[in-house]
Amino acid sequence: MDLVLIRHGESEWNKKNLFTGWTDVGLTEAGIAEAKSAGALLRAKGYDFDVCYTSYLKRAVRTLNLVLEELDREWLPVVKSWKLNERHYGALQGLNKAETARKYGEEQVKIWRRSFDVRPPELPEDDARNPRRREQYRGEDPAALPLCESLKDTIARVVPYFERTVRRDMEAGKRVLVAAHGNSIRALVYCFEKLSAREITEVNIPTGVPLVYSFDAAFRMTGKKFLGDPERIREKIRGVADQGSAPPGVPGG
Amino acid sequence: MDLVLIRHGESEWNKKNLFTGWTDVGLTEAGIAEAKSAGALLRAKGYDFDVCYTSYLKRAVRTLNLVLEELDREWLPVVKSWKLNERHYGALQGLNKAETARKYGEEQVKIWRRSFDVRPPELPEDDARNPRRREQYRGEDPAALPLCESLKDTIARVVPYFERTVRRDMEAGKRVLVAAHGNSIRALVYCFEKLSAREITEVNIPTGVPLVYSFDAAFRMTGKKFLGDPERIREKIRGVADQGSAPPGVPGG
Repeated sequence: MDLVLIRHGESEWNKKNLFTGWTDVGLTEAGIAEAKSAGALLRAKGYDFDVCYTSYLKRAVRTLNLVLEELDREWLPVVKSWKLNERHYGALQGLNKAETARKYGEEQVKIWRRSFDVRPPELPEDDARNPRRREQYRGEDPAALPLCESLKDTIARVVPYFERTVRRDMEAGKRVLVAAHGNSIRALVYCFEKLSAREITEVNIPTGVPLVYSFDAAFRMTGKKFLGDPERIREKIRGVADQGSAPPGVPGG
Repeated sequence: MDLVLIRHGESEWNKKNLFTGWTDVGLTEAGIAEAKSAGALLRAKGYDFDVCYTSYLKRAVRTLNLVLEELDREWLPVVKSWKLNERHYGALQGLNKAETARKYGEEQVKIWRRSFDVRPPELPEDDARNPRRREQYRGEDPAALPLCESLKDTIARVVPYFERTVRRDMEAGKRVLVAAHGNSIRALVYCFEKLSAREITEVNIPTGVPLVYSFDAAFRMTGKKFLGDPERIREKIRGVADQGSAPPGVPGG
């Protein structure tokens, strides 16, 4: 069984180097091009799918739409869930690195950057960005919606969702494509590769590159590969590690 | 209860004046602009939705995606079904008016244009366009897939689908948006307005104009309106009646 994961291409806030999290920003022209290339590559390699999953955030939804256009598969069912959203960066959302350091101190920023279970500051309950106050989450259980998340929190929502949806589809013989975010994909990588808390914080997911995992019948990982030019992918991974989509050094902002 | 229907904007084959049917062609630049305007209009009028339906054909899927972008509602669930596809035009698909007349005679073309229950010639079973041979319909019951349809046939697939999906959602309190095609929308109009076979063949659905139906608790139609400038809409309806999206005079090709 194969599973294909794609992290969305460059977003408007990636470009501005701001903490994005659940801020619902669009793709840049570069991000659109990345999504199209990913679709063209999947097509060239002969990949096909039966069902697709994505988050509630438009940068992932649009990436998926563009991939499906390239694959000539716009008729495929698409399941959207906030459980595949990016990590919620709480009150850091909208700040750039300099602002964050000024507001919280360099040392604290380093901890947030690379920790597994340290949460950023929460959004205030009365903040307009509180998901409980947003139309986008009006159909969801308010108690389940976060005001901030550590990577561990993100894993705790992504993995159970994956187990009861994507994994079941795969075990029923369906070929699944997931278009998501740096940290929701890292949550899956952590689970599939049985990494430690330390190991997962060192993993960087390149944008717009199809990542293919293979599993045996017991759903043990048997293979992992990125599709595309290896040197280009290494560059992209370095880019994420060095500056990435969030303020420099923050993986998967 | 309100229901909003939108016919997709101009497609590549509308522009070339070819019978389209189930041929899966994209939108033209004009069609993209129509879809965006429809979305902007719905937003300006304060419309919002809980669930969306569309066909398997990319001109409708893309119209819906563009409307949802304008509405900032890309996270809404979208249900796709071939039951909302355009009427299947059988062996006429890909022909223009002159070719059709040459091949089948002027008199016969007139009958196809305006009849309720006369089918165009079937696609041959071994035609590559036979839906049973196409990836797009691989998940469907082959016996249900047509080789051609009269308007009556289209009604016979659209209306029962509508009753068990959209209508149930509406009765459960959901606000529904449907992005579909000239003839799948006519099928609904026939049903909602309890038209005769003769009356429905005179109805023309303008492209890219939100059409809002209201219903009482017993699901009887209590109102109907198009959103937008009345003169512009009249022009569009005349355009469909005169030449429309199919060869001249063929409604909803």
